[in-house]
Amino acid sequence: MSELLFEQPLNEKVRNYLRLEHLAKQLDTHLEEDHQQRCFYPLFSLCELAERCDFRSEILKDIDRQLSLLKADPGALNSALLSELLDCREQLLIAERPGLHLKQNRFISALRQRFSMPGACCNFDLPQLHFWLSKPWQERQYDYEQWVAHFRCLLNPITLLLAASRESCEYRREIAPAGFFQKESSQSLSLIRVKLNIANGCYPTISGHRNRFAIHFVQFDQQKHSQQPVEFLLATCD
Amino acid sequence: MSELLFEQPLNEKVRNYLRLEHLAKQLDTHLEEDHQQRCFYPLFSLCELAERCDFRSEILKDIDRQLSLLKADPGALNSALLSELLDCREQLLIAERPGLHLKQNRFISALRQRFSMPGACCNFDLPQLHFWLSKPWQERQYDYEQWVAHFRCLLNPITLLLAASRESCEYRREIAPAGFFQKESSQSLSLIRVKLNIANGCYPTISGHRNRFAIHFVQFDQQKHSQQPVEFLLATCD
Repeated sequence: MSELLFEQPLNEKVRNYLRLEHLAKQLDTHLEEDHQQRCFYPLFSLCELAERCDFRSEILKDIDRQLSLLKADPGALNSALLSELLDCREQLLIAERPGLHLKQNRFISALRQRFSMPGACCNFDLPQLHFWLSKPWQERQYDYEQWVAHFRCLLNPITLLLAASRESCEYRREIAPAGFFQKESSQSLSLIRVKLNIANGCYPTISGHRNRFAIHFVQFDQQKHSQQPVEFLLATCD
Repeated sequence: MSELLFEQPLNEKVRNYLRLEHLAKQLDTHLEEDHQQRCFYPLFSLCELAERCDFRSEILKDIDRQLSLLKADPGALNSALLSELLDCREQLLIAERPGLHLKQNRFISALRQRFSMPGACCNFDLPQLHFWLSKPWQERQYDYEQWVAHFRCLLNPITLLLAASRESCEYRREIAPAGFFQKESSQSLSLIRVKLNIANGCYPTISGHRNRFAIHFVQFDQQKHSQQPVEFLLATCD
């Protein structure tokens, strides 16, 4: 069965984490393969998010919370996660505000100013971009790695924290009669995960907050709420 | 010699044409290869430009001008360009305003609203995008072709007109002493083309209007005006 996974954050923190994780994955695809000027979209999104909000203290708190959980578990004392989190913590403590350094990079700044304008990566708008794109891919890959490196102190722990949170919850089979499902929880929830057979032809729109959530399934082809019962797998993470 | 070509429009019309041509090339790369959600950036740029300005009458005028030039030349009466331009003219006359149809597409509209937000293509922002991306590439390619087709009546003639304009002008060898070059022209110019050996390590920044233009060469690595003489090839199109 070909499955699709949808996630919905139920608080602002996890919403930000998922957004940053999504960008981290995009950056990685641009490190692996030459996507030309397209590589700048996720980089500039990351710059903008990091300027709007300093995520460092929030991530540090979450690392510490996760570390104390691990330290309380004798089986986890030598785990890879524990030592990786300790690494992340150390790097985050000495890091300057991510993105600050890139703001002083004249090439990056000139590109960023133009990139949000429609069709504004023409070679007359940005001859320097045209020049940069003519460099061998290895050189550009190296540049890109340097730019992305400024954000690693945020992205690495977020990836670990989200993975730990996802691992802590299990899927149950559920059914949405007439395409609708809702649930309450006495425990505070942070993340909803919905796994769905693609053959259903629908996607979930999920709304909610920490103690309650609702799922509407929408038929993609008609862009309408499904009236059919929809089977799915549900996991809720604290 | 590995050469880089830079172009600078000297009027608003050619500026728009180059922008649209640049987007047309981007769209084509997304028709040839699966670039996932990245394919929407040039499509939405095109939607925005076509909403801001109705290019149809300007293109029609240019087609007619080019047609009368061709018809006055006995050697061009059976040319491929002539019949292609006649085709374009016909299609442009019956076309509704490009982009109008896509505005009514709910999937496209929902994506467009979100796409300019940083990091906003997460699967919780746009579950319908996540669903669409799970479709086989052939199906998505077909969808994309349909969306792009709405703009063909603009993009096809622009490609032909720009190609004809570029063919009408020839390169001359020039030198910019101390990285600077300027020129006046009694004829009204529309497009400057600069070809440059990449080994110079610099790119041109060109400014000007129809009767006069100036070129500053900038060293990429230092992001500073070059003080060295720079050899280049220059073509100026009417």
